[in-house]
Amino acid sequence: MKSVNVGMVGYKFMGKAHSNAYRAVPMFFPQSAKPVMKAICGRDADALEAARAQFGWESAETNWRELVKRADIDLIDINAPSDAHKEIALAAAAEGKHIFCEKPLALTLADSIEMLKAAEAAGVKHMVGFNYRFAPAVQLAKKLIAEGRIGEIYHFRGWFLQDWILDPSFPLVWRLQKEIAGSGSHGDLGAHVIDLARYLVGEFREVIGMSETFVKERPLPTAMAGLSAKGDKDAPRGAVTVDDATLFLSRFENGALGSIEATRFAAGHRCTNAFEINGSKGSIKFDFERVNELQVYFTDDADDVQGFRRVLATDASHAYMDAWWPAGHTIGYEHTFTHEVVELMEAIAEDRPASPSFVDGVACQAVLEAVDRSIAERRWVSLSEFEESR
Amino acid sequence: MKSVNVGMVGYKFMGKAHSNAYRAVPMFFPQSAKPVMKAICGRDADALEAARAQFGWESAETNWRELVKRADIDLIDINAPSDAHKEIALAAAAEGKHIFCEKPLALTLADSIEMLKAAEAAGVKHMVGFNYRFAPAVQLAKKLIAEGRIGEIYHFRGWFLQDWILDPSFPLVWRLQKEIAGSGSHGDLGAHVIDLARYLVGEFREVIGMSETFVKERPLPTAMAGLSAKGDKDAPRGAVTVDDATLFLSRFENGALGSIEATRFAAGHRCTNAFEINGSKGSIKFDFERVNELQVYFTDDADDVQGFRRVLATDASHAYMDAWWPAGHTIGYEHTFTHEVVELMEAIAEDRPASPSFVDGVACQAVLEAVDRSIAERRWVSLSEFEESR
Amino acid sequence: MKSVNVGMVGYKFMGKAHSNAYRAVPMFFPQSAKPVMKAICGRDADALEAARAQFGWESAETNWRELVKRADIDLIDINAPSDAHKEIALAAAAEGKHIFCEKPLALTLADSIEMLKAAEAAGVKHMVGFNYRFAPAVQLAKKLIAEGRIGEIYHFRGWFLQDWILDPSFPLVWRLQKEIAGSGSHGDLGAHVIDLARYLVGEFREVIGMSETFVKERPLPTAMAGLSAKGDKDAPRGAVTVDDATLFLSRFENGALGSIEATRFAAGHRCTNAFEINGSKGSIKFDFERVNELQVYFTDDADDVQGFRRVLATDASHAYMDAWWPAGHTIGYEHTFTHEVVELMEAIAEDRPASPSFVDGVACQAVLEAVDRSIAERRWVSLSEFEESR
Amino acid sequence: MKSVNVGMVGYKFMGKAHSNAYRAVPMFFPQSAKPVMKAICGRDADALEAARAQFGWESAETNWRELVKRADIDLIDINAPSDAHKEIALAAAAEGKHIFCEKPLALTLADSIEMLKAAEAAGVKHMVGFNYRFAPAVQLAKKLIAEGRIGEIYHFRGWFLQDWILDPSFPLVWRLQKEIAGSGSHGDLGAHVIDLARYLVGEFREVIGMSETFVKERPLPTAMAGLSAKGDKDAPRGAVTVDDATLFLSRFENGALGSIEATRFAAGHRCTNAFEINGSKGSIKFDFERVNELQVYFTDDADDVQGFRRVLATDASHAYMDAWWPAGHTIGYEHTFTHEVVELMEAIAEDRPASPSFVDGVACQAVLEAVDRSIAERRWVSLSEFEESR
Repeated sequence: MKSVNVGMVGYKFMGKAHSNAYRAVPMFFPQSAKPVMKAICGRDADALEAARAQFGWESAETNWRELVKRADIDLIDINAPSDAHKEIALAAAAEGKHIFCEKPLALTLADSIEMLKAAEAAGVKHMVGFNYRFAPAVQLAKKLIAEGRIGEIYHFRGWFLQDWILDPSFPLVWRLQKEIAGSGSHGDLGAHVIDLARYLVGEFREVIGMSETFVKERPLPTAMAGLSAKGDKDAPRGAVTVDDATLFLSRFENGALGSIEATRFAAGHRCTNAFEINGSKGSIKFDFERVNELQVYFTDDADDVQGFRRVLATDASHAYMDAWWPAGHTIGYEHTFTHEVVELMEAIAEDRPASPSFVDGVACQAVLEAVDRSIAERRWVSLSEFEESR
Repeated sequence: MKSVNVGMVGYKFMGKAHSNAYRAVPMFFPQSAKPVMKAICGRDADALEAARAQFGWESAETNWRELVKRADIDLIDINAPSDAHKEIALAAAAEGKHIFCEKPLALTLADSIEMLKAAEAAGVKHMVGFNYRFAPAVQLAKKLIAEGRIGEIYHFRGWFLQDWILDPSFPLVWRLQKEIAGSGSHGDLGAHVIDLARYLVGEFREVIGMSETFVKERPLPTAMAGLSAKGDKDAPRGAVTVDDATLFLSRFENGALGSIEATRFAAGHRCTNAFEINGSKGSIKFDFERVNELQVYFTDDADDVQGFRRVLATDASHAYMDAWWPAGHTIGYEHTFTHEVVELMEAIAEDRPASPSFVDGVACQAVLEAVDRSIAERRWVSLSEFEESR
Repeated sequence: MKSVNVGMVGYKFMGKAHSNAYRAVPMFFPQSAKPVMKAICGRDADALEAARAQFGWESAETNWRELVKRADIDLIDINAPSDAHKEIALAAAAEGKHIFCEKPLALTLADSIEMLKAAEAAGVKHMVGFNYRFAPAVQLAKKLIAEGRIGEIYHFRGWFLQDWILDPSFPLVWRLQKEIAGSGSHGDLGAHVIDLARYLVGEFREVIGMSETFVKERPLPTAMAGLSAKGDKDAPRGAVTVDDATLFLSRFENGALGSIEATRFAAGHRCTNAFEINGSKGSIKFDFERVNELQVYFTDDADDVQGFRRVLATDASHAYMDAWWPAGHTIGYEHTFTHEVVELMEAIAEDRPASPSFVDGVACQAVLEAVDRSIAERRWVSLSEFEESR
Repeated sequence: MKSVNVGMVGYKFMGKAHSNAYRAVPMFFPQSAKPVMKAICGRDADALEAARAQFGWESAETNWRELVKRADIDLIDINAPSDAHKEIALAAAAEGKHIFCEKPLALTLADSIEMLKAAEAAGVKHMVGFNYRFAPAVQLAKKLIAEGRIGEIYHFRGWFLQDWILDPSFPLVWRLQKEIAGSGSHGDLGAHVIDLARYLVGEFREVIGMSETFVKERPLPTAMAGLSAKGDKDAPRGAVTVDDATLFLSRFENGALGSIEATRFAAGHRCTNAFEINGSKGSIKFDFERVNELQVYFTDDADDVQGFRRVLATDASHAYMDAWWPAGHTIGYEHTFTHEVVELMEAIAEDRPASPSFVDGVACQAVLEAVDRSIAERRWVSLSEFEESR
């Protein structure tokens, strides 16, 4: 059995989720190559040390340029804010390190392509953090489609609905600033839906979208604030430079029709990452707020008992569940990361490409930009305009 | 095609529900024998005439003794308060009229047996108003069980939960007075669950129960008040003489275990008449608040897609639905009565027993009384103690 | 109390639904002006007479031109196939009859405007059959929005999903032929969603859509077939000339973003007419398959108990429910028509415009055509291009 | 900050769940006293070493008598099969170790009382593993009740439904043998429901129950097998000596009525640990298969929007959730153990009793035995017959 030495850049929300996954793999997936938590990296030395101790990393680095050069590191995990992804990834590739990068891969398609090319040139493994693929219920959806049990796909409907910035006095955190985040709900939430659509249905052919920023100015935050920051109504205000909501229609290469929406203004939806797929032989529904469940309908069920089944995807027959608890004992959000790391560890150990890789990161970025262009130019945009992303 | 002339005693909630059913049958079930709305009967002449005109009856009678003697009447429909059932039914039988009586059949088992014997002696058709059997979703449950698709039955769990008297200032309406209503939630709501249990699982072998009257005194109502009466906190008070809630455990003849509860103190439940059945090959769940739906689980579904199916019982393959609207177009509470009347009309036309008949009314009454005795004597009571009800 | 003499053209699915509503109004809404079922009209004399007897009309007419001239008719109800709407409506208006016309009002916007102008010129009442407005749960949604309890509206998401033509051997019924039906899922299903969006959110500003016909040829039916027709695989085939699915994005005048989809290819959805609305103070969800329910979320609920409430809209506080049964006793699809007729009867009795009127029919048609144009020309289309519809 | 050295006896299902909790506490609850995973104990040296390495314990002991004597151990965690609990606990107490024991505390009430007395005499902290209390949704239920927001409680309905032994060829594992497990569904599943009832409603006054063993003989297992063991139909068979299902009715000290059921024969229910509570001011519903959700109803909601709210108990306002992920990001089964360990660590650090303690274990055992006695003697049994358990 192999082990993989990890150096991780970032220690906030995603840094915590990744750390937990690295800790969980050896215990729940002992047959997997083992991630070794060598070093965590961030700029604020005190906060970093606290995170190191809490999350269980062996060492800390305040300069990522030092981290990527360390001989004892096999894999660089990048979950710093999005504007830092590219530079770190390029440096990691140059040092021959495997790379695990959170989504969105970069602020622009061009940057993400550069990252992919660098990783490929270096011959390292690369993975992008589309963790929702790794919910066992989503894995089941994939399996049903792959086995033809849903038939030819006609429709994909996907939403990622949140409400954490609904209050106009919520502060202007980095996720609301284009120069750091790249985009708003589109790149943060829509990217996940786009990835699930590509994973389950296939490639996009053309798109047309619209977007809106409902609250155009917000109080400046006093410090780097997370998802649950409290705003000060009387603080000076700055412009929100990303989208609050982005919707688009699409056609897929296989002829399916798509409708995708990402918003942070859907009151009552804390984290509704949901989709429905309709095919010639059945349908599938998923909602991340009930991450253990998949709704499945088959047209060939007996006439008098046709209906959506609520499958609790916690049986031993469901992906990854054998490693956890007996049937019916649910898992949650964090487990998607654990499964993701298992895939990455296995790819490294077996010397095969990881999935989703930067190829998927680039493809997703192309769709994001195609939608952006369709909004800017108010027209249908074909993915063929982004040939370089194929 | 035959027609059946109906004389109906009662014109409140149930009178309205029955009238609507008589009106609906010729339109939606034109192949059925046709109920003719000959006469409606009640004591208050003004209110009666208003009901007659509104519901569409040809004539009105203020004395039920006159009604049962009318030569132009084939069927007596009894939905007056429970304490009046027996006398009217005996008179109807004596006149050779078919009888459709609301549940509970009578205030006591002895009375209900007397009614059954009278009807049988007269050779008339008799039906008791267990309307919930006639929801297409319940019919589907029956079909699945009858065809062995659920296997051997292990468990029946049934509840009828309401909350309309939760407010302690709700007045002391007739349904809360033992001398008129016979019992409270037990006979009003529990009777329906008992009937569904008998219909779907089989006969009860033994029972043990408990009951409670949470609010022991209530304001006297100013007039005969219905389910939505408003109480006057300062009005004089009287004792509530029926149960607010009754629960019991049971064994069925076939070995299944039962748990049944009826209460009017379940906040948030307007009309939750629900049950679940677990068998060796599957399970069934029903909730009347979603009357068009049946949840069904089969153990022999493929391993990776096992789960309760939500069957919308509105397809042409479901009982009675062919007569209504296209698939997916729902029906409601009142339709259970329409189907019930269809069954009665067909029984009369085909000269065969209706189902559920007074036999079922008596059997239900025996279970009600067995539970009452088990409460009074704090012991398991066998239905064999009520041999006369078999 | 007034009565209104009705002459109805059409006797299939919608004719049955309307007839039932006319029968129900006097019984359940006795205070309303009373519809009198004077005459039913259709071309096939035998089938018509059967419908007349079954539905309870006083007389039958095989020529609608005769019907509209009858002096004893106050109101013409048009539910014949869509291509016949205009001619009949114009004739009815010319005769000074009130008009109740099923949706879509006409095959084209121009035709619908002509119908509206004719009705206005004649000074008659006019109503278009957007029956879903009249579900009590939808009325509650309207009330909550009107009272500001949902706040400023950000999002409208609406779907009408069916699956009755999923089987490629389902025959080429009239609803699949453009020259009779005008359009497919777009005009049949999408029209309802558009109307609900206009009713609840407001006017559309611009739209862009896409559509698809997944199954391009189907067996010719042997006779006029309804929604549950069985196809003959070996029958000669004809081209499907309408859309199987149409989706579009929209902006509303008030700045809200919309996403609307209509399809007949969503396996497992018999009749999912559903929408969700997100506002600054709350959200609303509705699904017609659970017609008695509205899901409502309020941002100002206490922090620890925020969540969507499942409101069973059957309480006396909910629109129209006082007329039916006690709280918790559900109603179904057909009741939306009864409420619709109550509105029409009251409008006539009170000499005020009915709602929704032909104005709404025209406005809906404008949106339908704007979407069609956006599809044909692959561009955003502003409703201002249809000034004549305002 | 303090640390607590743990020695754990048992390494199967519960051992894994406990180990995971010990690992999670320092990362997610860094302010808590820290559990140090000193030693794991079991009889099979090879399997034990594998578990030690996988779960991350510092050392292994094959003899629990050695373990309890180790000077470096502060806390003994007992999750071996139930028949071993008592002896280990008594030894641990004798050595002055804190004790964390899985439920059921012992095979008999007398044994559990002995354990409680020993722990109290030794002055050590003691906790019993009723982990379901620690779901944030259950904590919310407790809070709502404690704050009077549900009012006076009228009804408790609780079920623990599973289906893992539905197949008659499932083998005779230790959980189906009375001498090891003590009881079947009653002690395994019912114990959890009883504890939740005590936690949320209060003490039981009297009970009456019934039970059944549907499958009376099963194939002998080839080796110690877990919940997902596969049986060999042709293997020699042994008698099942525990209950497959146990149901009982109860009255609580505060007058509430209870109905509780535990079964392993409910097809389609993998792990439905569910309850509903109805009070004078509202109701609460919980189902462990949707562990993040609590359904709550308040009678004082506005008349037109009354309904059960689906509260996703993942907000920062919900117990323990602050430590995990942003709102809407769900947790699962294993987190209940982590929270349980936090409570135990805090109790030790603060030198206060842990909750639930052996007092709760004893009280639960008394109810279990009262039910058993009520079944054996076919009569209502008062908890006052078990005065020694108070």
